[in-house]
Amino acid sequence: MRSALFRKLVSVDDAKRILAENYTPKPVGTETISLSESYDRTLANNMVSLHDIPPFNRSTVDGYAVRAEDTFGAEEDHPVSLRLVGRVSVGEAPRVEVQRGTLAEIVTGAPIPEGADAVVMIEYTAREGNSILIRQAVSTRENVMKAGSDIRKGETVLKKGTVLSTYEIGVLAAIGSAKVEVFKRPRVALFSTGAEIVEPGKSLAPRKIFDINAHALSAAVVACGGESLNMGIVQDEANQLKVALQKALKTADIVTTSGGVSVGPTDIIPKVLDTLGKPGVLVYGIAVRPGKPTTMAVVDNKPVFSLPGHPASALLIFHVFVRPVLLSMGGRKEKPVIVKAVVSERLFPSRGRRTYVTVTLKKGRAGRLLASSTPSGLSGAITTLAKADGFTVIHESQQFVEKGAVVEVELFKPSTYYSFMG
Amino acid sequence: MRSALFRKLVSVDDAKRILAENYTPKPVGTETISLSESYDRTLANNMVSLHDIPPFNRSTVDGYAVRAEDTFGAEEDHPVSLRLVGRVSVGEAPRVEVQRGTLAEIVTGAPIPEGADAVVMIEYTAREGNSILIRQAVSTRENVMKAGSDIRKGETVLKKGTVLSTYEIGVLAAIGSAKVEVFKRPRVALFSTGAEIVEPGKSLAPRKIFDINAHALSAAVVACGGESLNMGIVQDEANQLKVALQKALKTADIVTTSGGVSVGPTDIIPKVLDTLGKPGVLVYGIAVRPGKPTTMAVVDNKPVFSLPGHPASALLIFHVFVRPVLLSMGGRKEKPVIVKAVVSERLFPSRGRRTYVTVTLKKGRAGRLLASSTPSGLSGAITTLAKADGFTVIHESQQFVEKGAVVEVELFKPSTYYSFMG
Repeated sequence: MRSALFRKLVSVDDAKRILAENYTPKPVGTETISLSESYDRTLANNMVSLHDIPPFNRSTVDGYAVRAEDTFGAEEDHPVSLRLVGRVSVGEAPRVEVQRGTLAEIVTGAPIPEGADAVVMIEYTAREGNSILIRQAVSTRENVMKAGSDIRKGETVLKKGTVLSTYEIGVLAAIGSAKVEVFKRPRVALFSTGAEIVEPGKSLAPRKIFDINAHALSAAVVACGGESLNMGIVQDEANQLKVALQKALKTADIVTTSGGVSVGPTDIIPKVLDTLGKPGVLVYGIAVRPGKPTTMAVVDNKPVFSLPGHPASALLIFHVFVRPVLLSMGGRKEKPVIVKAVVSERLFPSRGRRTYVTVTLKKGRAGRLLASSTPSGLSGAITTLAKADGFTVIHESQQFVEKGAVVEVELFKPSTYYSFMG
Repeated sequence: MRSALFRKLVSVDDAKRILAENYTPKPVGTETISLSESYDRTLANNMVSLHDIPPFNRSTVDGYAVRAEDTFGAEEDHPVSLRLVGRVSVGEAPRVEVQRGTLAEIVTGAPIPEGADAVVMIEYTAREGNSILIRQAVSTRENVMKAGSDIRKGETVLKKGTVLSTYEIGVLAAIGSAKVEVFKRPRVALFSTGAEIVEPGKSLAPRKIFDINAHALSAAVVACGGESLNMGIVQDEANQLKVALQKALKTADIVTTSGGVSVGPTDIIPKVLDTLGKPGVLVYGIAVRPGKPTTMAVVDNKPVFSLPGHPASALLIFHVFVRPVLLSMGGRKEKPVIVKAVVSERLFPSRGRRTYVTVTLKKGRAGRLLASSTPSGLSGAITTLAKADGFTVIHESQQFVEKGAVVEVELFKPSTYYSFMG
């Protein structure tokens, strides 16, 4: 029987190596969806344009299509007169050709007619019977958007792994992609264990607390492009855990539990995990702070993470260990977002453990960022993390980080970035 | 009949003022949803905790609950022996009291029993029959998370207008909120007009281009917390436009069209808008570049924006005029994201028009950002915007912006922020 008292802690690097030796995260599959559903989805292929965009030379203004050389010398006081031979509308082939000494009326977006190579804006013209006075010369290609000038036929416009937002969706519309093949969202089953936790919304009996982790971790999964399957609270009892884990492994691509791994001298989850498939539990305790009571397993080629019950610990371990796996399974390539900052006090690691110190950032002098640690000893507190901007890492081998040292801070949320810039 | 040739351009500031005089954006309503659906939604109320969180003093470690003063003087070589009187589990009231000279076994998260005021970690203890040897002294409150230390009863934990993400959802779970009242997503009806545009996925006849705007603007709406109702392509003909606008005004909170306002000497959309309700068209052409052919109307207290057909122009005008209205209607308070940068070339405005110059940013020396303008004259190009990081504004009164000047750049996408930091 595994005992929490006799955990054999492995280092963070060893834990990652052991997991990597037993499980290689791969995209869970692709699906073809309509462009209108594609916001925040991840491209499964490079996207190549089958057309020049625009597909033909277009006018960028309302005015007159001309041969540029016919306008040379035209000025406010010395206009050039050219004969109007027709009109070009949008969306149809021009029925007119512009020969020397002539021009054609044209509107924004309409195709440049044969013979013309520039457009004079209507503001610089005047009509005189069947002729148009040109009051400003144009050069070749002026006010003309050339075929292929936006996107060339055969050009790769977006790369596999791109997360689609406004501009990317605009580019896909431009090349005519009504359907788009994207990576499936990895499904992450989540449940919390612990005799003290109660589902939010229920009444809070004495000595009970509301379950934070299943909800916060669900949101963290969505933020990484995953789909969360929140299975709620499962009691810390072998049979119930076995049923819950089996169900989770059947329906999800990753399983995450929290709590239960340090609630007593005997841990049930690792024991149950070992009965469900090979190789079973790989890591049982990590030399890390916070998050020591973390278990990692692989069961029939699906990763299972048993995270600590403390919300701040659970979310940090999720960020460090689960998020990279989840991103890979969703075909995403997001890199950690790291800034440099000056630490405003001496920071101590937990002896022999890699220590993640959550910090708040503020702007100092000369555009430097200052990092202050958030109160420690509150890994049970959700507000600690909600107030933190990111974390810095103190390695096992370091004795401390001196006040004034420059450290790397990995940021938690994109929405905080802007306040540290410019 | 309105004619594009005789637009009376108003300034950007006047356009905003005229719109504000005729329409005050207000949240479109609220709805109560479950916490598990609340990611990226916007809080409609301040959220106040009804409980101390945690609701009781908890142990943050596995070990023994003690009276701290009983451990004073305990050291590795001189342990203090205390008598074990019971065990405290999570989720239930302790059935034991810790009196002088005694202690109780306790696990992480369990309530501190009566009489105890600190917890000794199990690592610093040894068992001897019915007594426990304490090898390290603890101070009062050590390894104890006090009731209310995370969140106090009555504390406002999140403010109205907060957009919910991982940590905020964790905080709501912590205070037991299973349901949450959020602002409704404003509905934005979108359609594109123009004889030259074709729905992506259809075959591209000669002189036609794929519709970019309805798709890119739909995504921009979603990015602002709105719900987009993409009505596709509507032909530039009075009856069809009237039917489409009436349907849009009936189902949506905001209506956005693009194209059609500069396709010929006579504009149909403003004419139709004036027949649909009061006050009708308010702004018909803005002294702005890009985006001059922008129409703003209010019809029976719903705002209607007719944006230019050029994708880059349409998206920029959306950002400047529509986005702030949409955010207000969704109860969001997001501020523009602005950084300072040094311009790498002299920038010229379009004479008499407020000019928005799209720029790419890169890091220069000493942490300064450098801004280079993206190729102009390509407002029809979607790739121009996709490559731009943001824009800088040149006011009507400015002659130019000198090379080397420091300007403010408003960023388009949060995901680009990090690369300019730290």
